[in-house]
Amino acid sequence: MLPFQTLISIDKKTSMPVYLQVANRLIALIREGIIKPGAALPGSREMAALLQLHRKTIVAAYEELYTQDWIQTIPRKGVFVAQHLPEVKPRKFTQGVSIPPYAGNTGFPFSRQLSLPTPATRIIKQRLVINDGFPDMRLAPMDLLLREYRSLISNKTVQAVMERPDPAGVYALREAMVPHLTTTRGLSIQTNNIMITRGAQMAIYLAANLLLQPGDYVAVGEPNYYMANLVFEQAGARLIKIPVDEYGMDIDALAAACKKKKIRMVYVIPHHHHPTTATLSANRRMQLLELVRQYKLAVIEDDYDFSFHYDSAPILPLASTQHEGCVIYIGSVTKVMTPSARIGFMIAPENFIKQAIYLRRLIDLRGDNLMEAAMAALLRNGDISRHIKKSNKVYHQRRDLFCALLDEHLSGVINYRKPAGGMAIWAQFHPKHPLPVVAARAAEMNLFMNDGASYITGKTNYNALRIGFASLNEKELQEAVSILVRATRK
Amino acid sequence: MLPFQTLISIDKKTSMPVYLQVANRLIALIREGIIKPGAALPGSREMAALLQLHRKTIVAAYEELYTQDWIQTIPRKGVFVAQHLPEVKPRKFTQGVSIPPYAGNTGFPFSRQLSLPTPATRIIKQRLVINDGFPDMRLAPMDLLLREYRSLISNKTVQAVMERPDPAGVYALREAMVPHLTTTRGLSIQTNNIMITRGAQMAIYLAANLLLQPGDYVAVGEPNYYMANLVFEQAGARLIKIPVDEYGMDIDALAAACKKKKIRMVYVIPHHHHPTTATLSANRRMQLLELVRQYKLAVIEDDYDFSFHYDSAPILPLASTQHEGCVIYIGSVTKVMTPSARIGFMIAPENFIKQAIYLRRLIDLRGDNLMEAAMAALLRNGDISRHIKKSNKVYHQRRDLFCALLDEHLSGVINYRKPAGGMAIWAQFHPKHPLPVVAARAAEMNLFMNDGASYITGKTNYNALRIGFASLNEKELQEAVSILVRATRK
Repeated sequence: MLPFQTLISIDKKTSMPVYLQVANRLIALIREGIIKPGAALPGSREMAALLQLHRKTIVAAYEELYTQDWIQTIPRKGVFVAQHLPEVKPRKFTQGVSIPPYAGNTGFPFSRQLSLPTPATRIIKQRLVINDGFPDMRLAPMDLLLREYRSLISNKTVQAVMERPDPAGVYALREAMVPHLTTTRGLSIQTNNIMITRGAQMAIYLAANLLLQPGDYVAVGEPNYYMANLVFEQAGARLIKIPVDEYGMDIDALAAACKKKKIRMVYVIPHHHHPTTATLSANRRMQLLELVRQYKLAVIEDDYDFSFHYDSAPILPLASTQHEGCVIYIGSVTKVMTPSARIGFMIAPENFIKQAIYLRRLIDLRGDNLMEAAMAALLRNGDISRHIKKSNKVYHQRRDLFCALLDEHLSGVINYRKPAGGMAIWAQFHPKHPLPVVAARAAEMNLFMNDGASYITGKTNYNALRIGFASLNEKELQEAVSILVRATRK
Repeated sequence: MLPFQTLISIDKKTSMPVYLQVANRLIALIREGIIKPGAALPGSREMAALLQLHRKTIVAAYEELYTQDWIQTIPRKGVFVAQHLPEVKPRKFTQGVSIPPYAGNTGFPFSRQLSLPTPATRIIKQRLVINDGFPDMRLAPMDLLLREYRSLISNKTVQAVMERPDPAGVYALREAMVPHLTTTRGLSIQTNNIMITRGAQMAIYLAANLLLQPGDYVAVGEPNYYMANLVFEQAGARLIKIPVDEYGMDIDALAAACKKKKIRMVYVIPHHHHPTTATLSANRRMQLLELVRQYKLAVIEDDYDFSFHYDSAPILPLASTQHEGCVIYIGSVTKVMTPSARIGFMIAPENFIKQAIYLRRLIDLRGDNLMEAAMAALLRNGDISRHIKKSNKVYHQRRDLFCALLDEHLSGVINYRKPAGGMAIWAQFHPKHPLPVVAARAAEMNLFMNDGASYITGKTNYNALRIGFASLNEKELQEAVSILVRATRK
């Protein structure tokens, strides 16, 4: 008989019942080939004695094994490991030195290899963080959100509705978005033109993957929002990079490109271009619209930053003009509320929205119904508009303070243009201050910042990064600037 | 002069400021070619008189237009539409009859056309809903979730951490999952082997899109979870359908297929196969494991239903065995909590997880940090385990009641096997009761149910659907059965 008392060890401290520990260990022994198919097992009384356990525990373990087909009980003969298990070659019994199955690399090869500029799972340890341009979560009306949660949860009818999946987004939210988008952006849309996504990023991914075939040409700004470039590239597209200056994308250059190549799609960020923060001028908007109509270009208009303007009201999007169904308009509610509530949206003709919903379901069956329903309520009762107004005021002040601090302490080191809105500046560092060095020195002083690698989308090293000012309060902005001063001191 | 008083109409009821309405209307008129580039506009005083508005409103509107580059002010001459706008051909001014840009189809062609078995945006109006097998949201410990939300929100340090993006999932949750999965499923993993996703569906999508190249062969059950088939097909894979019987996938048939074709990946649902609810027998698990090692097959083990077992403890997953890094294990927390909290996870060797994180970022920058952090707390303090225990008890009772009702009232109409666990039965209707007819009749009696179309994945019409019993209480189950009886009465 096998030395079960040494092969089966029980851990009384885990929450797994003892009978299950016995059963699982026996299964492992059968799997490892140590107990052979057809082998007799000790009776429950005998096994209980061997393992110093109660007999009922062994009976429960054997029942478990029986239910799982591992053993058979032959009346008046005893308990046997099932015969119909496949022949398993016994492997060498090397105590505790076998490599756990997940400790190495995959056993199978896989050819898809993506790589992103910044390590995706880095844990940030610094106290102060300069991000790309996110809202300040401390200002987010989380109490209002929780109030809506509580009210929704206590309402049984609403609950029942929320169990019903709708990958286009909770109907109440789509319905509430229509007047909101009509009033703020002059869009002429119906509920069937809108779908809710997990942030603007998912909308970009869905649109690109519906539109693009491998080999298609896509016109993008240079520089461009690097996550958009990666999405287009993974869909197999070839990027045509159009220069971006202080008035946004150079549409003359785009027109020239359209003459040379069959461009499938144009990706534009009209407000506060990412990363440069430039606003596409009215003149260029008109030009772009002419090109769109002439070539029947598909346009992704990524207007993630629409709600935050300090120097003038936002410019109406291309989507509000007569683009003849060519503009897919993408926006974000995340930026308005909190980074944790990832809600974005896509506006397009119904035939496109329908396909986008199909694709979205393959990726993600539905959104967070509870959060979407809560957002609908906040939109309807004006809480979101009030919050946008309030945060515009705060971010406006922070922009002004931050720019004043930069002008006072870092002129000659950082070159930037004061943005008309949004949550970040595009900070180009003087070449004598290479960003990897600056970032490393700042990290030692408890400030985390991007080392500029993310923004190198082409051959040009801009030695630049976006500095999000919105999520830092006055004291933190002063601290950050003071650390930057020390990090760039020779 | 143009008849501005008729061209510009003001809506006093919208929340858009009047000056912005004037500015936007003027922009539209320029865009439509009604006002030409270079044209003179009335002075602010004159325009105010024409429109019967305050002069300050017109000044604000003109300032807006100026900031947006639409007009120029030439001192002592007046206000002019900018000259450098491109030539726009005037279009016919047809009042109110132009088609809004989103009212028709897309202006551009797009070739990607997906189609799903069930309309994705259908609004369900019936009071009772038979779903595929979802938990009962009314049992979900939403109060505990809100308690964690409140506690997280009031903690400034935690908040700061939550602003930091981690597309792998909040670290605290991944960390809490390791002991949870080790105890319940015998997995030998580290934090770097796990990523959090939006439900199991996203994990399937990510894994398939990393693994599959167009033309690859993927072995799936027949029938199979139809959303998985669609994911593999959109990734360009060719499906090899392996029969599923009461012991799960027929591994002999899989072995034969492996000899004939180079199979890249196998998709298995070990517990309560979707749709048939069969559990993969221990014998077949062993066989499958041998095949995996022999052919270095990539396996997606979709164990979405692990936590719900009524007749025996769950069988340990393939992932807990020595699979040499070949098994990608996918699970769901959604099923445990509420359909609204879509949290799933993927377990794989680190090199695969890293790529999956990259791909996930392209689709969805990060999860809901707040919800993930709250889940981590609920997992750590045992609330989730307690909730699983409690709901197992309730669902166990509901399964027994539902099966008893079916046996009493619908034998001969519905053929099914009592499932060992999970939240649904696989109900095959007698051919004399075609499901589209039954579903239509039930809909009239206020019961929504699938018409079986979703489950027709191959050539076979099973005339079957999954009936989720977990989300219906005793009274609702009785009602549902009574409606089914009436809907199948001749």
